[in-house]
Amino acid sequence: MLRRNEVAAGIKDYILRHHLKPGDLLPTEAELCEAVGASRSSVREAVKTLSALDIVEVRHGHGTYVGRMSLAALVESLAFRGLLSSEDDHLVLGEVVDVRQNIEQGFAPQVAQGLDTDQLARLRTLAAGMAEAAERGDDYLELDKQFHLLLMEPLGNDLIQQLTGAFWEVQSIVTPTLGSEHQGALTLTASLHMAIVEAAEARDAAALRTAVAAHYDPIRELIASVRRPSTA
Amino acid sequence: MLRRNEVAAGIKDYILRHHLKPGDLLPTEAELCEAVGASRSSVREAVKTLSALDIVEVRHGHGTYVGRMSLAALVESLAFRGLLSSEDDHLVLGEVVDVRQNIEQGFAPQVAQGLDTDQLARLRTLAAGMAEAAERGDDYLELDKQFHLLLMEPLGNDLIQQLTGAFWEVQSIVTPTLGSEHQGALTLTASLHMAIVEAAEARDAAALRTAVAAHYDPIRELIASVRRPSTA
Repeated sequence: MLRRNEVAAGIKDYILRHHLKPGDLLPTEAELCEAVGASRSSVREAVKTLSALDIVEVRHGHGTYVGRMSLAALVESLAFRGLLSSEDDHLVLGEVVDVRQNIEQGFAPQVAQGLDTDQLARLRTLAAGMAEAAERGDDYLELDKQFHLLLMEPLGNDLIQQLTGAFWEVQSIVTPTLGSEHQGALTLTASLHMAIVEAAEARDAAALRTAVAAHYDPIRELIASVRRPSTA
Repeated sequence: MLRRNEVAAGIKDYILRHHLKPGDLLPTEAELCEAVGASRSSVREAVKTLSALDIVEVRHGHGTYVGRMSLAALVESLAFRGLLSSEDDHLVLGEVVDVRQNIEQGFAPQVAQGLDTDQLARLRTLAAGMAEAAERGDDYLELDKQFHLLLMEPLGNDLIQQLTGAFWEVQSIVTPTLGSEHQGALTLTASLHMAIVEAAEARDAAALRTAVAAHYDPIRELIASVRRPSTA
């Protein structure tokens, strides 16, 4: 285990020393073995570990590349933790909702000021699309995700974009264990997104904070409704 | 690759169906092969992937256990991304600082209300320890980490604790690439932590928000000082 981590550290060191960037090709396995002073099987093992973390990306038949270091690993472990806790109290889902709300509220001033006309128009289109889907009785997961990513776009902070996407993924994986949402909840949530758009259009940071908070009420109520009283 | 992910999904499914919790022992490799309908080598590969994500934990000589699903994988990939970007503009470090500040400011009202007498006393002790270390010319990474974890403790949100720890780790790995901090900066940062304690003791959420923001000024200035103008 230690050995595998050492070889992985050697490969990361190689990437740093050679100033490689995400998407750059790594040397062949044979060259990598020589560079880090390890056997072929150790290097292969280490590459698998780094691949699970998206630090490298193995494209079969092409070679190994520096990865995008996305938060995919975060999504996978957090979503699974969420599913594990879904059978008792949905603790993890509640925590994810708290963090999402806190981040979106905290950046409300920059968002209210920073959204340009095009972004505002796209937010409105997405919220309108949600209302239409709800009217047909369909859910609108993808529109919802696009909405929240777009809302944070003015910040120009890639980590925020990735966290927003990651937490949204976790929530969308775990929420179905709460039972299916009925049409009334879908319609309500769509209208709460439109209220966010209206606050943003008015460039009103305080109203945006309030609208963001209100928009998390239905999911909080859903969590509370299935949470059984503790028997401790 | 697909195959490996399918077997990993099978193992996760096994954990869910058998209501296993972090720390619980998984069946033997042979039993796991039968349960998920895969070969020994596929199961071994999948276990390695899940182990990199801390979804399972392999204790050599003892067996494989359900992991703690920590954010260790997030730290590893984000810290490495931070190191990669350290040679140009420290973009990732700047993003991490923004997110940390946003989270701590956002929860200021709950923190100011929620800290109990014991927690306040421990915060004061930590800030005093930082000042003493600075006087000796020593840094105080561990005290700083404990301080920020303790500050978020009243929220009772494990995800926040883990994110706080993870972002702090990333920052502490990447910051040394900015060059060593001189004693003046250490003394200043220690006193800015004491200002946070005083705002918390006064249960003043607005003052706490201000003190938290001010405490990130030195690191922001350090980043700005090494950031070279873009040549694009």
